[in-house]
Amino acid sequence: MEIKNRSIIIDFEPISRRVYFSSDGSLYEILSDLDVQIRSICGGLGTCGKCKLLVQKGKEFLTTPTKTEKSFLTEVELRNGWRLACQTKLNKNNLNHLEKLTQPQFRIFLPSDTLLEDFKILITGISKGTKIQPTIQKVYTEVRDPSLEEPYADFERIEESLRAKLPNLKRNDIINIDFNVLKNIPNILRESDHKITIVLWNNTNIITCEPGNTIKDKFGIAFDIGTTTIVGYLINLNNGKIYAVGSKLNSQTAYGEDLITRLTLIKENNENLQKLNSVVIKDLNEIISNTCSIAKIDSSQIYEATVVGNTVMHHIFLGLNPVNIGMSPFIPVIQKNLNVKAKKLNLNISKNGNIYIAPIIAGFIGADTIGVILSSQIYNEKSLTLAIDIGTNGEIIIGNRNILYVGSCAAGSALEGAHISNGMRAAAGAIDTIRINSKDLEVSYTTIKNKKPMGICGSGLVDVIAEMLKSKIITRSGNFNREYINHESFIRNDKKIEFIVAKKEETSIGKEITVSQDDIRQIQMAKAAFYSGTRIIMNHLKDNQMIKQIFLAGAFGNYINAQNAKFIGMIPDIAADKIFQIGNAAGTGAQHCLLNRDLRNKAQELLKKIKYVEIAIEKNFQKEYAEAMYFPHLKLDLFPSLGEYKEIPKR
Amino acid sequence: MEIKNRSIIIDFEPISRRVYFSSDGSLYEILSDLDVQIRSICGGLGTCGKCKLLVQKGKEFLTTPTKTEKSFLTEVELRNGWRLACQTKLNKNNLNHLEKLTQPQFRIFLPSDTLLEDFKILITGISKGTKIQPTIQKVYTEVRDPSLEEPYADFERIEESLRAKLPNLKRNDIINIDFNVLKNIPNILRESDHKITIVLWNNTNIITCEPGNTIKDKFGIAFDIGTTTIVGYLINLNNGKIYAVGSKLNSQTAYGEDLITRLTLIKENNENLQKLNSVVIKDLNEIISNTCSIAKIDSSQIYEATVVGNTVMHHIFLGLNPVNIGMSPFIPVIQKNLNVKAKKLNLNISKNGNIYIAPIIAGFIGADTIGVILSSQIYNEKSLTLAIDIGTNGEIIIGNRNILYVGSCAAGSALEGAHISNGMRAAAGAIDTIRINSKDLEVSYTTIKNKKPMGICGSGLVDVIAEMLKSKIITRSGNFNREYINHESFIRNDKKIEFIVAKKEETSIGKEITVSQDDIRQIQMAKAAFYSGTRIIMNHLKDNQMIKQIFLAGAFGNYINAQNAKFIGMIPDIAADKIFQIGNAAGTGAQHCLLNRDLRNKAQELLKKIKYVEIAIEKNFQKEYAEAMYFPHLKLDLFPSLGEYKEIPKR
Repeated sequence: MEIKNRSIIIDFEPISRRVYFSSDGSLYEILSDLDVQIRSICGGLGTCGKCKLLVQKGKEFLTTPTKTEKSFLTEVELRNGWRLACQTKLNKNNLNHLEKLTQPQFRIFLPSDTLLEDFKILITGISKGTKIQPTIQKVYTEVRDPSLEEPYADFERIEESLRAKLPNLKRNDIINIDFNVLKNIPNILRESDHKITIVLWNNTNIITCEPGNTIKDKFGIAFDIGTTTIVGYLINLNNGKIYAVGSKLNSQTAYGEDLITRLTLIKENNENLQKLNSVVIKDLNEIISNTCSIAKIDSSQIYEATVVGNTVMHHIFLGLNPVNIGMSPFIPVIQKNLNVKAKKLNLNISKNGNIYIAPIIAGFIGADTIGVILSSQIYNEKSLTLAIDIGTNGEIIIGNRNILYVGSCAAGSALEGAHISNGMRAAAGAIDTIRINSKDLEVSYTTIKNKKPMGICGSGLVDVIAEMLKSKIITRSGNFNREYINHESFIRNDKKIEFIVAKKEETSIGKEITVSQDDIRQIQMAKAAFYSGTRIIMNHLKDNQMIKQIFLAGAFGNYINAQNAKFIGMIPDIAADKIFQIGNAAGTGAQHCLLNRDLRNKAQELLKKIKYVEIAIEKNFQKEYAEAMYFPHLKLDLFPSLGEYKEIPKR
Repeated sequence: MEIKNRSIIIDFEPISRRVYFSSDGSLYEILSDLDVQIRSICGGLGTCGKCKLLVQKGKEFLTTPTKTEKSFLTEVELRNGWRLACQTKLNKNNLNHLEKLTQPQFRIFLPSDTLLEDFKILITGISKGTKIQPTIQKVYTEVRDPSLEEPYADFERIEESLRAKLPNLKRNDIINIDFNVLKNIPNILRESDHKITIVLWNNTNIITCEPGNTIKDKFGIAFDIGTTTIVGYLINLNNGKIYAVGSKLNSQTAYGEDLITRLTLIKENNENLQKLNSVVIKDLNEIISNTCSIAKIDSSQIYEATVVGNTVMHHIFLGLNPVNIGMSPFIPVIQKNLNVKAKKLNLNISKNGNIYIAPIIAGFIGADTIGVILSSQIYNEKSLTLAIDIGTNGEIIIGNRNILYVGSCAAGSALEGAHISNGMRAAAGAIDTIRINSKDLEVSYTTIKNKKPMGICGSGLVDVIAEMLKSKIITRSGNFNREYINHESFIRNDKKIEFIVAKKEETSIGKEITVSQDDIRQIQMAKAAFYSGTRIIMNHLKDNQMIKQIFLAGAFGNYINAQNAKFIGMIPDIAADKIFQIGNAAGTGAQHCLLNRDLRNKAQELLKKIKYVEIAIEKNFQKEYAEAMYFPHLKLDLFPSLGEYKEIPKR
């Protein structure tokens, strides 16, 4: 009966929760049982209409919409699969069809309005600091009145008084004024008794004139648009302080969790570009509005936004067609940085505010990587440094003050918990650190927010692999060690063997949390992608140089146990004190670009210096990848410090 | 009976035709009798609805709208005074009220759609020539295909191929691309097999990409927006040739013939700015569409427009509020030149085309004056030169390669035929040259298009004054000479005396064409404004310099008899071969700005050099003006070459 019930599987997204369906309850009750907090005022009584969710797969196996649903949802919503969690149950009449399937029959998306779950999104980065020298300047000035003797135009008098205040402006520097601002200046001048604050962008462009003295209100917002998560940092441009941080799941995930799915959608129908674009703009505007209300400012006081993101996010944000990025030879529309008026992109900041979009390096190396490079200042390092930004696509940067190489490796989303039996994102209830006692194979672990465990997130996965190796539960080739599989820590069904990390009674999901042979393969593939990618790039360097330090960036990079990452052979074998976890370096890069205009020139300059390596087409890639599948590597001498490996069987 | 009938007066605008009403016919018949050609397919039968006109004054004295009118005109149109000429007559029941009035009781506006009259609008200027070096460049290039080895973005490959074709571009010159163009380049590149034509503005800005080789199609249009008339010159930017000229009456005249009326309208209600702006934009778009169909090109092949116009026209065209120009100290919103995207101004040229608007000098010295200065190249002259642009406002420019002074004088519209008993614009049937035989006072004249005379235009007025002086019909103070007023060439009614220029039987208006004492005053005031303005500005010059040559610009300046203008004391007394009639120099200036980018910098540079003299506030202005009211001047020694004056009585 267990097994029969377990054959009905629901994937809840974007939280990557897989549920083995075994209850008669509504989706609301299932989610409550799982401790997934969703919005509901009425507690499931069907009177508030807040528990909206989107059934992306499996509609036909659910009960038909109730009267209550018809009153809260529009016809179009119902047609598209929107339901209320409290009203929706499995339709028992159709159950028979499902019994023999092993793939999930349901995919249900929880929009961010519905989902109250508290995600462990990395919003801080460890910054090397930057000068405060924003492109936005505010100048308060008292413009002189015109007279018959000196009947100069409004703009020319403003310009005169601006030049008097900005002695660094050269006579030849032309002051430009936004045409819409120009239309307003006769009124602003006369209503404010000629006392105004001029907002300048990039030295010479008047983007706003405000009545009175407003120089203390000068804000910017830096965005990191990730495939899954968007973070925005509201920053006071006078002192560089972060006044508010807003983050949310990228609503594009409703259209597909990974980039390839979204690219396919756009390729199918160009209108989907518009759709995905408006979805991400809506997300950014939500973050703007939320951070403004936290900081108690008006969004018109934000004069500039900076944006980093991978190439596809970059293109969709700008409304540029990204389909050519999705097929060989993976060509973006533009690489160099862009400055676009906020209103052209419908971003709700100051009407004539500027959006700076950092440059991208190649089809799979986006503006986020530029962000990592800028904030880590790898280009200033004396020692050869490896920086890894770990996400669905892993970016590898190798460089120092002389050279700069980048490459992208298809790490897959295993490290984000996808395609792993009990994988999940780094949310409450995720097992994030694991130790195994090599004598009795007893597992101890911690969970995020100390909730009852419901799955394993990326850092937990790296830990469990490293610990299983140290306990010789698995071999260097990633197989379960035959000597151990009869131990009580294993479940054996048919041909499937799973190592138990958390016992049934400990978890909140009504069953064990385990690691399977397939799970190990997924992690092997991910770590092999990083390591072989690093090797491939290193082959481009002259003189047999060695990596002297490592920066681990990204949410995962920050929470991972770096020693275990080295132990499984994901990163090269260097001393612990030379491995730095630098946090959300991409987002920090966006902040630095907001605060320091010089970095933008630096970014363009670096574009010319950076050498891009298309890892997957290198002739020795297959060999390198296969060798790196071993723990830590086929060639043990690459990891001289890991003495434990002498005792770990190879196969 | 004559006199009674003549007390009913209709002013037809914008043709400045005053009609003394003496018929029972419809407005259509009156206009036909006057030889004013208006649109009508049915010939006045009331079946085509084409003879629309706008009754601006006197609605209440007309018959009420007929069924036919109600079928062709909307309720709103009828309420606003729109009528069909063929359906509208004078309402005889109300005639009694009108008998004792002497001011026109009717003002009827003929929109350009209705009016077929062929106007003598000056559309050519005598050009000193300019280099062909437009801001618009077209570059045909074959962009290389991307590859896995060199996976550069679309924009970067375009940039690379552009730089190869433009060796003068410096490495540091940043190539910008219009955001909307960027969105299209993936498609354009791939659909055209990577063979494209890039349209550049100002060296480094990509404003369009076109598939294939289109370098031969490169057009621009130069506009001169006058208070009354708009002219547009469609120019091939490859060879500098004018492919088509379009001109039309400025539809803003429906809202007021002079600038002050329009400024008052805008001051009353800001929405009128929007209205007047859309009216002028519509006019320009009509000219664009007409010239394009003449030249058989598509308006998307026009990549740039240049615009000159007086300050108020400049502001209304740009949608900038001009009300502060209308009151002391007469302050415009902006003086410097502007480049605005065509689509921001709703001008139907290439989507990302540029509009260059020449700078203005002061509240009453507009971009048209900059046009005159640029095309006359007065700033290159060795000799001190006086340039006069004669319109409703007279602009006076005095300068040479060292100095440049400008001033504006309120010449009034007498020289355009307004406020003159039988004045009219330079349209078919206008008397444009006049000679008087001083023995028998016999008048000979010519008319425009050799039509039966219906009025006198500006050049005719200057002639008739000069000829009356030479024949001693009037004195140096502008009075009719008592010795002559009993001659048969005069009409005497009550206290009014009029000199007959054309006898009743010669004219098409059923009465004599005459010059009255008041008419002479009007011309005196106009010529005194020019001459005293010139003197006031000359007072600013050091070292008692003398004017060595004169440029007469503008339509009137081109058709005037320069010797007679000198004879009446409108311009200083210099040799005939030093007076040049340079045509529509403002429009020519707009053309030169379209063809030669360097002139735009020149214009900005000149702005700094030009000294503006506010003539009317100078302390000796009243005295200078009063002295200049005499023919040619109170001080005869200022006109040493005019020996005839010895015999002309002073009072």
